[in-house]
Amino acid sequence: MRLSIEVHLDYAFPEPADVLLQVEAAALADQWLEEQALTIRSDHPIRAVTGEEGIGQRCWARGEHRLIADYRAVVRIARPAVDLAVLPATPVAQLPPSTIPYLMPSRYCESDRLEHWARRRFAGLSGGALALALAAWVEAHLDYGWTDGSGRTGALETFAQRRGVCRDYAHLLVALARAMEIPARCVAAYAPGVDPPDFHAVAELWLDGAWHLIDATGMARADELVRVAVGRDATDIAFMTIFGTATLLAQRVAVMRLPEQERDVDPAR
Amino acid sequence: MRLSIEVHLDYAFPEPADVLLQVEAAALADQWLEEQALTIRSDHPIRAVTGEEGIGQRCWARGEHRLIADYRAVVRIARPAVDLAVLPATPVAQLPPSTIPYLMPSRYCESDRLEHWARRRFAGLSGGALALALAAWVEAHLDYGWTDGSGRTGALETFAQRRGVCRDYAHLLVALARAMEIPARCVAAYAPGVDPPDFHAVAELWLDGAWHLIDATGMARADELVRVAVGRDATDIAFMTIFGTATLLAQRVAVMRLPEQERDVDPAR
Amino acid sequence: MRLSIEVHLDYAFPEPADVLLQVEAAALADQWLEEQALTIRSDHPIRAVTGEEGIGQRCWARGEHRLIADYRAVVRIARPAVDLAVLPATPVAQLPPSTIPYLMPSRYCESDRLEHWARRRFAGLSGGALALALAAWVEAHLDYGWTDGSGRTGALETFAQRRGVCRDYAHLLVALARAMEIPARCVAAYAPGVDPPDFHAVAELWLDGAWHLIDATGMARADELVRVAVGRDATDIAFMTIFGTATLLAQRVAVMRLPEQERDVDPAR
Amino acid sequence: MRLSIEVHLDYAFPEPADVLLQVEAAALADQWLEEQALTIRSDHPIRAVTGEEGIGQRCWARGEHRLIADYRAVVRIARPAVDLAVLPATPVAQLPPSTIPYLMPSRYCESDRLEHWARRRFAGLSGGALALALAAWVEAHLDYGWTDGSGRTGALETFAQRRGVCRDYAHLLVALARAMEIPARCVAAYAPGVDPPDFHAVAELWLDGAWHLIDATGMARADELVRVAVGRDATDIAFMTIFGTATLLAQRVAVMRLPEQERDVDPAR
Repeated sequence: MRLSIEVHLDYAFPEPADVLLQVEAAALADQWLEEQALTIRSDHPIRAVTGEEGIGQRCWARGEHRLIADYRAVVRIARPAVDLAVLPATPVAQLPPSTIPYLMPSRYCESDRLEHWARRRFAGLSGGALALALAAWVEAHLDYGWTDGSGRTGALETFAQRRGVCRDYAHLLVALARAMEIPARCVAAYAPGVDPPDFHAVAELWLDGAWHLIDATGMARADELVRVAVGRDATDIAFMTIFGTATLLAQRVAVMRLPEQERDVDPAR
Repeated sequence: MRLSIEVHLDYAFPEPADVLLQVEAAALADQWLEEQALTIRSDHPIRAVTGEEGIGQRCWARGEHRLIADYRAVVRIARPAVDLAVLPATPVAQLPPSTIPYLMPSRYCESDRLEHWARRRFAGLSGGALALALAAWVEAHLDYGWTDGSGRTGALETFAQRRGVCRDYAHLLVALARAMEIPARCVAAYAPGVDPPDFHAVAELWLDGAWHLIDATGMARADELVRVAVGRDATDIAFMTIFGTATLLAQRVAVMRLPEQERDVDPAR
Repeated sequence: MRLSIEVHLDYAFPEPADVLLQVEAAALADQWLEEQALTIRSDHPIRAVTGEEGIGQRCWARGEHRLIADYRAVVRIARPAVDLAVLPATPVAQLPPSTIPYLMPSRYCESDRLEHWARRRFAGLSGGALALALAAWVEAHLDYGWTDGSGRTGALETFAQRRGVCRDYAHLLVALARAMEIPARCVAAYAPGVDPPDFHAVAELWLDGAWHLIDATGMARADELVRVAVGRDATDIAFMTIFGTATLLAQRVAVMRLPEQERDVDPAR
Repeated sequence: MRLSIEVHLDYAFPEPADVLLQVEAAALADQWLEEQALTIRSDHPIRAVTGEEGIGQRCWARGEHRLIADYRAVVRIARPAVDLAVLPATPVAQLPPSTIPYLMPSRYCESDRLEHWARRRFAGLSGGALALALAAWVEAHLDYGWTDGSGRTGALETFAQRRGVCRDYAHLLVALARAMEIPARCVAAYAPGVDPPDFHAVAELWLDGAWHLIDATGMARADELVRVAVGRDATDIAFMTIFGTATLLAQRVAVMRLPEQERDVDPAR
């Protein structure tokens, strides 16, 4: 799978503010950057820093009056399909220490509040079968759409409202997984089938020794997702964190499938 | 049904504070006070005021160092059994104006957040049949018990946690009813079967021109409940509202069934 | 003071929903309706009901596909100026029962959380002098503007954020007054100086036996405000409560000062 | 400084639950463990895992019916006093990537909500002088004591309530620091002067290339604190995280100053 990604951001700043951008596709073993360029029009130097868990990168910019950023990339994804259903459960006491923060409730994934319900509802399931049941439950029980508090809602509220956008789907799946003792994190991603086209958010669950991407909205398969960043919830994976206030002027995200490049061109010639 | 009610409250006050007590059984057409006495040990005058909707009464006291209150009453309940299942629905536009505040979300009954789910889950039901279905759902899906935020939880959180005490059951039933366009309020009550013995909270739903008591915990039938106060949620019906801080020293509530009094006994015999 | 009021509302409904509109100027001793007309384009009958506390009126409409409402009125305000500073405090135990609900915390006016701070900050003040000090504090410490959670923020959050729109100013003043044992309610209003023109929200505090309007934003004087509705907080005084979901298509509010009408002019002279 | 630490925990479990304990003093360059022993009475194997940021360690236990844990340690602290006032500020773009998660709002440290106020209140200050001003503000404006939501309150609510216990002081200082672009984290600690004796929580701010401990309650100096764990807020540094429910039967924490050991005593004399 090859994807072309184009992002255009244009924000106005009533007062100067530091801005942390996180829009670049991460270079990882299962997704390679064929090309990429991030252009930020600014009088201030831009500084890149590694993302959380060493995945992807963030960059610091300075919003003064106006901040315009353009990002273009071509990414090749080579992520083998995994049959999650057969993956065994890992007892919590055998989890690697690095996964333990992803068992904890976080601001938008209040897993502690959903634990009592989840344990009764999904009793008897574990490992990959449990993960798939959680994802299927979220997809079946939520309606896709904005709610009046969108951008501030957490899993608890989404569980009651039964409506939300991609971040809400991801938060709820992550919270349910944590409530069931499966480490789970949120992933900012690009994917071709997102409608309307936008930044995307999905979940990643730790099963049988590895992280596995799951899009609870059903919009994207695991092999179509380009990871940008990972973290505990929307706070960590925001494409833009503004230390101050800003006004959106324009924002566009376009992700398109590209034809597979002709590699292995006839060696006989 | 005759009930004897005994309440003992003993609180300490680090700083003087105004206190609104609401512990007296209300005198109403379907519950008569055979005896009652509220004794408050205080150097300050006590002042009684009518409760919300003209039901019951509150009294203002002053907590200085210590506030000790004792209440005793004998109440006769004569509340005819009503088969809620047959009561028709009232279209919102035909509701009396006095019931409209009880359609609105309130602090602990966030009906607006539960509307989307409730409308799908209980589609096709209306009136008394809907009310019974909501109460049955709450009783079946909650486990009785304290949660770590008890006293501050609202219906939204109870819906997710699936656990709570009487006020949580009442809040959730009230919120679901409002979400389904049935006016609903919370009622502070005394009832004999409450275990452990304590102040009780139940719901009251407006159906077919009258308010109907429903205890979603299943602990008390409508004809065993003595109303103390009504209101939008726990805020309004608290047995004690302290304008400051206080420490609980002792609190006891005892409600017992009494034998029916021999009335109309022939004095000549 | 004479004001002309014009409102235009146009909303789309993905699914049919009951709608409670509350846009009509209330007919009261200190504000008279010279003319008014509410026109709702709908295939369903409209039904008017009295507003909370018997003030103003609400009307039930049915949102199907589209709901378009137009309201026009000319209102004369004759509200004598009151020097709040000299009004004495009323001890809580002497408040009329009807004011007690307005001492309680509510969803968006969490007075219980602000009590500890308010009592220290405003120690020594009472009655009208306290009310003015609270209003002055709110006006001085908030910046006017939308926040990202606008529409869902309460007084607690506004107190921390120090930014908000008219409803946030009203909520914070109301919450502080309640924390200081002054009954306080929120009032939906029209006022000429609101910028940008919109529905307005102000506070009303109970002092010395009467309710007194205070606009903590400083945009309107008490004698320029036309009351539409009163209630505990934004929930009760919303211009539109939708039992379902709707999308805003267009909304305009225009309030203009009119010249004082020449009354009793002898045309013969 | 040498401290002896003794902890006794005794909890009952209605249903078996996984439990993550985090009570052991961390072995670090500025605090050495002279002795330590953690004894857990359990039929299940205990498993230790490294704490967050590689600091300290957690251990997994299984709560079945009862979980009794005893911890004893002797810790020597050698932490040079630092004059924070002279430490320069680090521009955010020059912060090491590992500190960036500690700039973000978290569940109990809602720095985004306090940003607007903090920036105005502490304008003109930066670096160590700002850190000290923030800590002094928190100490001066909060009263020490439990609030009715203790255990669930975050910095936003503490800011309004102006009252809290050590975790609330830490949360508020951390939130204010983050709002002012100083990375800040919460630290679980032992300290001798905590009254009543209990687990303690303090803040750690990143200044001039290193983390600096600050106890906003004023109970402990930096050279008296033994770090147990660090994290974003109380969620990460809890001494016990229960994946289920448990009841406290007994809990004791005792921290005492020990005489400095006679080292380097000349045996020849």
